[in-house]
Amino acid sequence: MTPTVQPAIVGATGYAGFELARILLRHPQVKKPALFTREGEGNGPAQLDQVYPHLSGNGGYPLESFSWEALKNKGVDVLFLATPHEVSREWTPEALSRGVQVIDLSGAWRINTPAYREVYRFQDHDPKLADELTQKAVYGIPELHRSKLKKASLVANPGCYATSIILALAPLVQSGWLDLSHGVICDSKSGVSGAGKQPTQKTHFVEVAENLSAYSIFSHRHTGEILEQLGLQPEQLVFTPHLLPIPRGILSTIYVKLNAPIEARVVEDCMKQFYAGSPWVRIFPHGQMPQIQYSLHTNYCDIGFTLAPERRRMVIVSCLDNLMKGAAGQAVQNMNLMFGWNEEEGLK
Amino acid sequence: MTPTVQPAIVGATGYAGFELARILLRHPQVKKPALFTREGEGNGPAQLDQVYPHLSGNGGYPLESFSWEALKNKGVDVLFLATPHEVSREWTPEALSRGVQVIDLSGAWRINTPAYREVYRFQDHDPKLADELTQKAVYGIPELHRSKLKKASLVANPGCYATSIILALAPLVQSGWLDLSHGVICDSKSGVSGAGKQPTQKTHFVEVAENLSAYSIFSHRHTGEILEQLGLQPEQLVFTPHLLPIPRGILSTIYVKLNAPIEARVVEDCMKQFYAGSPWVRIFPHGQMPQIQYSLHTNYCDIGFTLAPERRRMVIVSCLDNLMKGAAGQAVQNMNLMFGWNEEEGLK
Amino acid sequence: MTPTVQPAIVGATGYAGFELARILLRHPQVKKPALFTREGEGNGPAQLDQVYPHLSGNGGYPLESFSWEALKNKGVDVLFLATPHEVSREWTPEALSRGVQVIDLSGAWRINTPAYREVYRFQDHDPKLADELTQKAVYGIPELHRSKLKKASLVANPGCYATSIILALAPLVQSGWLDLSHGVICDSKSGVSGAGKQPTQKTHFVEVAENLSAYSIFSHRHTGEILEQLGLQPEQLVFTPHLLPIPRGILSTIYVKLNAPIEARVVEDCMKQFYAGSPWVRIFPHGQMPQIQYSLHTNYCDIGFTLAPERRRMVIVSCLDNLMKGAAGQAVQNMNLMFGWNEEEGLK
Amino acid sequence: MTPTVQPAIVGATGYAGFELARILLRHPQVKKPALFTREGEGNGPAQLDQVYPHLSGNGGYPLESFSWEALKNKGVDVLFLATPHEVSREWTPEALSRGVQVIDLSGAWRINTPAYREVYRFQDHDPKLADELTQKAVYGIPELHRSKLKKASLVANPGCYATSIILALAPLVQSGWLDLSHGVICDSKSGVSGAGKQPTQKTHFVEVAENLSAYSIFSHRHTGEILEQLGLQPEQLVFTPHLLPIPRGILSTIYVKLNAPIEARVVEDCMKQFYAGSPWVRIFPHGQMPQIQYSLHTNYCDIGFTLAPERRRMVIVSCLDNLMKGAAGQAVQNMNLMFGWNEEEGLK
Repeated sequence: MTPTVQPAIVGATGYAGFELARILLRHPQVKKPALFTREGEGNGPAQLDQVYPHLSGNGGYPLESFSWEALKNKGVDVLFLATPHEVSREWTPEALSRGVQVIDLSGAWRINTPAYREVYRFQDHDPKLADELTQKAVYGIPELHRSKLKKASLVANPGCYATSIILALAPLVQSGWLDLSHGVICDSKSGVSGAGKQPTQKTHFVEVAENLSAYSIFSHRHTGEILEQLGLQPEQLVFTPHLLPIPRGILSTIYVKLNAPIEARVVEDCMKQFYAGSPWVRIFPHGQMPQIQYSLHTNYCDIGFTLAPERRRMVIVSCLDNLMKGAAGQAVQNMNLMFGWNEEEGLK
Repeated sequence: MTPTVQPAIVGATGYAGFELARILLRHPQVKKPALFTREGEGNGPAQLDQVYPHLSGNGGYPLESFSWEALKNKGVDVLFLATPHEVSREWTPEALSRGVQVIDLSGAWRINTPAYREVYRFQDHDPKLADELTQKAVYGIPELHRSKLKKASLVANPGCYATSIILALAPLVQSGWLDLSHGVICDSKSGVSGAGKQPTQKTHFVEVAENLSAYSIFSHRHTGEILEQLGLQPEQLVFTPHLLPIPRGILSTIYVKLNAPIEARVVEDCMKQFYAGSPWVRIFPHGQMPQIQYSLHTNYCDIGFTLAPERRRMVIVSCLDNLMKGAAGQAVQNMNLMFGWNEEEGLK
Repeated sequence: MTPTVQPAIVGATGYAGFELARILLRHPQVKKPALFTREGEGNGPAQLDQVYPHLSGNGGYPLESFSWEALKNKGVDVLFLATPHEVSREWTPEALSRGVQVIDLSGAWRINTPAYREVYRFQDHDPKLADELTQKAVYGIPELHRSKLKKASLVANPGCYATSIILALAPLVQSGWLDLSHGVICDSKSGVSGAGKQPTQKTHFVEVAENLSAYSIFSHRHTGEILEQLGLQPEQLVFTPHLLPIPRGILSTIYVKLNAPIEARVVEDCMKQFYAGSPWVRIFPHGQMPQIQYSLHTNYCDIGFTLAPERRRMVIVSCLDNLMKGAAGQAVQNMNLMFGWNEEEGLK
Repeated sequence: MTPTVQPAIVGATGYAGFELARILLRHPQVKKPALFTREGEGNGPAQLDQVYPHLSGNGGYPLESFSWEALKNKGVDVLFLATPHEVSREWTPEALSRGVQVIDLSGAWRINTPAYREVYRFQDHDPKLADELTQKAVYGIPELHRSKLKKASLVANPGCYATSIILALAPLVQSGWLDLSHGVICDSKSGVSGAGKQPTQKTHFVEVAENLSAYSIFSHRHTGEILEQLGLQPEQLVFTPHLLPIPRGILSTIYVKLNAPIEARVVEDCMKQFYAGSPWVRIFPHGQMPQIQYSLHTNYCDIGFTLAPERRRMVIVSCLDNLMKGAAGQAVQNMNLMFGWNEEEGLK
């Protein structure tokens, strides 16, 4: 059966955009994606495999300068925006008005609570429309919002850190077992591709190698979406990101207090039940903790936990590949839902 | 002035032992260290620079099979044990009985509380003597036990993780500001040399590279010494070690709750005052966090902190080089105190 | 169409064996592979995903103790031996006598020239049979021996270094342009997985990280197969392997002298023509050199070259993933040929 | 004895400049170095420990905007230029005219042969003076030019790759044993700090990690100084640099052909004799090859070699720390000679 859906990517030369291109290129349900750059005509490379020779030898991957005209000519059905949030915020309304479905990988549409999105300093041309779209946008964690995603025209693809934390905590928050007066502590560690492809002092090899550093303590942008999705108050969450000397992968170590002693088996059952029917979450048996290597280059989020001897404290470890389940893989998982395909399509 | 003190190292071919050898070789107050191995005569390399060609070209570093006779012949004054805790537990009484001062880098003498040292499963020939020595041993964090160390004949050199955590928390615990009903959470990350030189599946390059893993959750051996030194109860501490894909360095991210809102300046002053006169602890200004690179190959423990907006939660980051302040460097710092020398001697 | 071919792997818990398992598990033309270990019954893990939790959540991967009985019961058609060469040398005759095709990943059957295989010190029960099988075995580089491989019952899967060097040089040696009186110099660098999964001092993280080392100079085992496949004499080849601080990937930098000045275009054409019809070799344009990243996790061998200004000296760079085109991927490529399938089957 | 010599560094915030600052700060023969930046007043950090918190806790390290007035006020005796070659080319004449001795770490003054320095595209205000200074400048490899360096007022500190290659080959070229009709092949691999601190796509962590790449084949700037110092013709040298995924360290693998078979002992003696009296070169016994780790953070250049079985081909491996013997360490070694101090002063 010939695929009929035409996807497009803006920002295919970035790390998440390139991962997305690689997935879509082998996705059985979609046509070869149109690849757009935001640069003016005549600049930049003309083919994606000039930027990523990884792709060479498999035919052409023309990069085009983005324009609405080009989008129309290509007959694009679904647009992936791997762009800075300012660009996503500006282009999304136009795309939707042209009947193109949008999956946005930036933070532009993830947060409803005005206070939590102040950090992004959005400057909207049409604030009313922006508010409407924010309401309309579905937060793209399929495991939590599957039915809404099936009907969504705008998906706000979650942050990488946020995904690792929300998936680990959602079953427990729902269970009501957590003593939230003690708060939740999320100590996350990410590979460098999460910081983007733009060369900066922070991402210079010599600054990252042989090193580990914490950053954006009490001020990271993903905090708002975590709070909102889990229904926590700001004083109930501490989130500390760290920069790991590896290219990709996230591990979040999460600390919670329980209202009462609990059996490991009960926790495990709760998590497994919560994620029954979710092929991209793997729950590990009590005491066996996931490692970053296990989910690298896959769309899995791996979750494990260990209870304290008195069974009232718990450490949860959650791992994923920040470019897959933390970005491009999850974006495709969302596309699969939007178009009524199997959630694993193109991701196995 | 010719140095008169004769040091010796057992276990100089391990990572901490080699670091110790390198420091003692350039320490102005001591003679060239005698280097002992635990292997029987005729086995193993005859020179330390056969194991570590890093040292070559600087004369000989003969390795001798350890014996009490050899120890006596060398006129050893102070014996560094970079040995498994079983060996340290066995050899220390004999060394002390011969009038040799002992600085033990293992866990053999660190813990007083019987329950906390069960994890080591000591099998003492003379349990009464072992108990006496445990009482007599001084826990070798100079910043906390300086005056006792000056008179010590047996020093229990602390664990690497423990040092990073105890130094970060000691001023705050003493201040009484901590709400310990919330407990203290220590999320620590260590380079691989902390796991020792013995090749294992866990330390195989391919298992560690591109990876991060948590281990020994609620069960790591250093837990006891942390509890004891800080005067905490087991249910007040969570300590999660992680294995970092770097050769050396520790970063501990520590989470505490405060009884009342506090000013950053007050915290900073408290820490600075606590460590006034301690040349090997550096307190960073509020919001500037230490990184592993800053203290690599030095004897510093670097401590920084960030307060939450409401100033009742705090994240503390503590970094050190696990082979220096976390092992060999601190051992030499302790020797300096024991012999009445400047604490920085041989470590600059 | 339901696959009918039953593959089996001995040694699936090693790095190459695991990669092989992962490929065969998604190969559309074969049944789920039988996974054998060489250990006695009752020892070792019972499931491959206990060793590699990467696989978890996808059903069972039972590991069985190898026996000829078990092989027969499973109805195995093709046996992959990811075993030490002594084991391969011993088991291959029996497997072939039972009508099972063998793809051997060790050095057991790669070399015909007796002098070149002395380094392996084979101790054959039946030297005559061993010699016959050595003659019968086809060296498994599809790009050179495609037609023989299609009829082979025993494939000697090449060494990883050897593959990178032979593919880079084969077109040039055949062209007759090389001034072999100057010899050929191959400076190769490999990731650590090439050294196997067994923990050794050499593969300890701390020994490899932050390091580079040359080894086995003028004495590496792959030398013989390189000489034989390229038709070179021992004095015409220098091969120096180095251990890189990365988990996987090989880059060989190869130096040749030409008989006469040559045009870059002519070299490029020669290489492209030689590998026309070979989907797993990519020739880069003159002056653009492949990097290890480009072919990681793929079955490609990437080849690039740069001519000296006077066009009589040339540097060739050849890259591949040592576990894919250097081992498991190439093994599957060989299987594809043996069974008449498309060479790319299961490898895209 | 109070030191009287006042050094200054321009470019102390770069990797080589910072290494230089660290060495000079503990050098017993010099005053605390003056630290200059090239930026205009009022920009940039005011203290070196703001850029490198590694230094914090040891007093102030004020960074000043460079001016000739400031240089004079500080009473600078010797000026280290860790600056781009254009800047070094421009500032050196003025510094010398003011009686300040100059040690330049750039490529500005290393090359005498006009053809070899074309690659730098110097644009001199006063070409005649520039030529005179080029003649006057002493190439700063102490092991080759010790006596000239003792009287030098301008030292051209060598390139890092060049140092590793020249030191390895100098004894053999002098011996006359090399068959130079076969040329010399230098396959060099360097850590990333050699590429400088400026963030670029090439030095982005994600581009370097898990990778190896060759670059500047037949066109690297260090080629000219290697040719000149060894007295080789361009067609006698192939030099291929590679970018290693480590922060620092260089390993050069060098291939030579000999006029006649030779004994390993003879080669070893030749090298040892050549470097007798040179404390910073270590010759390894035949067959034992240096590794990058051995000389990291030291000023050593380590050299080892292996002869082919027929003893007419030889592989030489040369290692050094590109920021020490390859830059800052060698610069200080040169200063030591210029001022009549022990060559090891400040470097042990």
